[in-house]
Amino acid sequence: MPDQKLPTRAEDFSEWYNQLVLRAELADYAPVRGCMIVRPYGWALWENIQQALDRRFKATGHVNAAFPLLIPRSFIEKEQSHVAGFSPELAVVTIGGGEKLEEPLVIRPTSETIIGHAYSKWIQSYRDLPVLINQWNSVVRWELRTKLFLRTLEFFWQEGHTAHATLAEAEAETRQMLEIYTDFAINEAAIPVIPGRKSASERFAGADQTYSIEAMMGDGKALQSGTSHNLGQNFAKAFSIRYLDREGVLQYCWTTSWGLSTRFIGAIIMVHGDDQGLILPPRLAPTQVVIVPIYKTDEEKAQVFEAARKMRDALVVEGLRVRTDEREGSSPGFKFNDWEMRGVPLRIEIGPKDLAKGSVVLARRDKPGKEGKSFQPQQGLPAVVSKLLDEIQAALLTRARDFRDANTKEPKSYDEFKAAVENGFALAFWCGDPECEAKIKEETKATMRCIPLAQRESSGTCIFCGRPSKEKGIFARAY
Amino acid sequence: MPDQKLPTRAEDFSEWYNQLVLRAELADYAPVRGCMIVRPYGWALWENIQQALDRRFKATGHVNAAFPLLIPRSFIEKEQSHVAGFSPELAVVTIGGGEKLEEPLVIRPTSETIIGHAYSKWIQSYRDLPVLINQWNSVVRWELRTKLFLRTLEFFWQEGHTAHATLAEAEAETRQMLEIYTDFAINEAAIPVIPGRKSASERFAGADQTYSIEAMMGDGKALQSGTSHNLGQNFAKAFSIRYLDREGVLQYCWTTSWGLSTRFIGAIIMVHGDDQGLILPPRLAPTQVVIVPIYKTDEEKAQVFEAARKMRDALVVEGLRVRTDEREGSSPGFKFNDWEMRGVPLRIEIGPKDLAKGSVVLARRDKPGKEGKSFQPQQGLPAVVSKLLDEIQAALLTRARDFRDANTKEPKSYDEFKAAVENGFALAFWCGDPECEAKIKEETKATMRCIPLAQRESSGTCIFCGRPSKEKGIFARAY
Repeated sequence: MPDQKLPTRAEDFSEWYNQLVLRAELADYAPVRGCMIVRPYGWALWENIQQALDRRFKATGHVNAAFPLLIPRSFIEKEQSHVAGFSPELAVVTIGGGEKLEEPLVIRPTSETIIGHAYSKWIQSYRDLPVLINQWNSVVRWELRTKLFLRTLEFFWQEGHTAHATLAEAEAETRQMLEIYTDFAINEAAIPVIPGRKSASERFAGADQTYSIEAMMGDGKALQSGTSHNLGQNFAKAFSIRYLDREGVLQYCWTTSWGLSTRFIGAIIMVHGDDQGLILPPRLAPTQVVIVPIYKTDEEKAQVFEAARKMRDALVVEGLRVRTDEREGSSPGFKFNDWEMRGVPLRIEIGPKDLAKGSVVLARRDKPGKEGKSFQPQQGLPAVVSKLLDEIQAALLTRARDFRDANTKEPKSYDEFKAAVENGFALAFWCGDPECEAKIKEETKATMRCIPLAQRESSGTCIFCGRPSKEKGIFARAY
Repeated sequence: MPDQKLPTRAEDFSEWYNQLVLRAELADYAPVRGCMIVRPYGWALWENIQQALDRRFKATGHVNAAFPLLIPRSFIEKEQSHVAGFSPELAVVTIGGGEKLEEPLVIRPTSETIIGHAYSKWIQSYRDLPVLINQWNSVVRWELRTKLFLRTLEFFWQEGHTAHATLAEAEAETRQMLEIYTDFAINEAAIPVIPGRKSASERFAGADQTYSIEAMMGDGKALQSGTSHNLGQNFAKAFSIRYLDREGVLQYCWTTSWGLSTRFIGAIIMVHGDDQGLILPPRLAPTQVVIVPIYKTDEEKAQVFEAARKMRDALVVEGLRVRTDEREGSSPGFKFNDWEMRGVPLRIEIGPKDLAKGSVVLARRDKPGKEGKSFQPQQGLPAVVSKLLDEIQAALLTRARDFRDANTKEPKSYDEFKAAVENGFALAFWCGDPECEAKIKEETKATMRCIPLAQRESSGTCIFCGRPSKEKGIFARAY
């Protein structure tokens, strides 16, 4: 990468994002249009996301499995709204082993259909319920306009698929997973998402109800960061997923699905990043602490390296993710910039003077310049570093929440509404009529992101048509 | 699953395997011919395999990444022997988003080509080397004859891809990964594999040298269980992966690749399983200990359940993977059989009499009947259980090694050789001539599995043609 500056976010947020993803080596373009390579630094971040989620899934009784990549074309057609939603986006395999296939196969765009087929075989009785399965994989959707992490032909995600005996249990599962996503976003990624219900027009193709978590990016736009669907009996009926209840009566199951993808990495970049580059939340950062040795002579180098490695080992023992930057031929200043660009939450500088004094310099990524720097004794450093990382994690969340709140308006008029969605969220009463929603979108480019679960008022008038309304929705332009 | 007995291994080894995979709920057939669903129990086993390998990969400096599923057809054609090997097995996407594609895309059968393309962009200088990347994913090869885990159209694996400055470094990497596979197989899976070099005819398409670990299954046949390839400069030249050396001269890199797949689950089943079902090595078993409560009255049930759960919690705290079987309406005998079939290494039985005596019954899966049963005080149980699991792990390895050694012959004549490969391995001198190898295969169905790295003799005569030979090879019928 040539050593030029990133565009600032104010200059060109989109280009800032694109260049940052490439320069921080999170991802790269693949030779196939719209596909991406997730590079080791990006994948290490995804692995930390995976672990934080997987732990939560397993703690709530879910298990992982792996369903096939290839789905018979006819499966997609079994659920009516599903086929309408996904047909235009399919990648189709027509040749296998040199022969034209009798029935074309599609690469999964999502796995409700093939999993529905399996569940219809596996589920016989109420004793087999609930079935709580998740899988980590990639899916392919033939998107036309793509952007690394945010929208790619192939993307990586987890998709949970559950089957239940009653609607109430399915709804409880759907809401539980939304809560898990919310908890993960807030407490691991320091992203203050808003959990809510989607409008009918924004529902998953085949769902009775879709919930999502919505986050505000650094440019005020919204990013849907995870979704949880109550599929009712739509897939159960399409795939004949049935069980014998306690009375021996054959019943259709109630199913759910829920997913969170590598798109979430885009959220982390756009919520926390600044003009210097990434700022990664300590709980998810692949490297939490980088130690940069500073020296001039060979003798100094030997001493500083030794001290740096000892310090690294002492921090690693405490469970921290630490690396020393021992690159030859790069100045400390270059290294500082490089790790700032890559968003490492905390930098430790150590040179001959620090060695003499038994101290080090700590530099916080989230507070540039002097404000974020402190001298600390080497003695007892691991405890200080752990505490500081917790502080950084908390500070990122506070900052993101303050930014979101400052850019969320509760407009009293449609004019105020239009101004609000120029660069933020509008929280406004909406009558629920899809026509108002469509008009708003047409006129302002803002979509109904979600109806927040938490509502402070219980009645008002629709921001567009003035009719009585019961709930406020978040409207925003969205990625 | 109907409650009928498995066929015995002696009756029909292949059918024993097929039924066991389904009944133990390790995997199921997918609606697309030759594809499989890895069910939660099978996937939990795979996750343990992944962790054991991933730990070893990362400890040796490797990082994970994710390269795309879709590869331009033309990429496969860039390396001559690669295209010859993989062309007949490709799944081809010809339609995307409703349109015929200008260039067909193939679903990766392996990722040397697309990774080679990326490395040619990423690698500029000797300072960028070595590149040590692994990925966990699935690949598709259009196989005609398939069998769950052993050979499926889509299978799950890891594929490591590295680039180096010199042949010596590439060879060292290739051998290091072979050692890691060997260590994993022996110490985690209790499978005494034989690491060795493949003959030219059995090499990976595009490799200068292929190494493999070979295991003997319960029917005496061989299973290639992991491979490591030195790709020389073949892919570096095909994809122009070059670096500027310290003198500023442009050089081609030397690359390697290595992989281990869900096929390995097949090895675990066929090496350790018996006529009652699976026997899983404790270090990889999803459930290491199952606690079966035994009771008649409701009062007994309450007491026994309480004791069982306490015991489970005490074992879980020690890091063991434990579950209690609280299923209603199933007899203890049914549960014993069920968990034996699923290969759980250790069973704890606890009933009212045990409660009164403060003891439990431990039953080892690897030693059926009385021989494997012991009474143990509840006091101090976690330490006893941990030790017993280690003993079971060791016993499985010893038994598999004894079986392998008993069924490995060093034939003095071609007649003895033919008898040996009927139901085991023949370790025999081979001149290295592909023609002898081909004739042997034609006449005996045995293939050259590998030339073991460890050779006790340094000269002899070819078992087929009688010409002077320097090395002995393992010949066997293989999966």
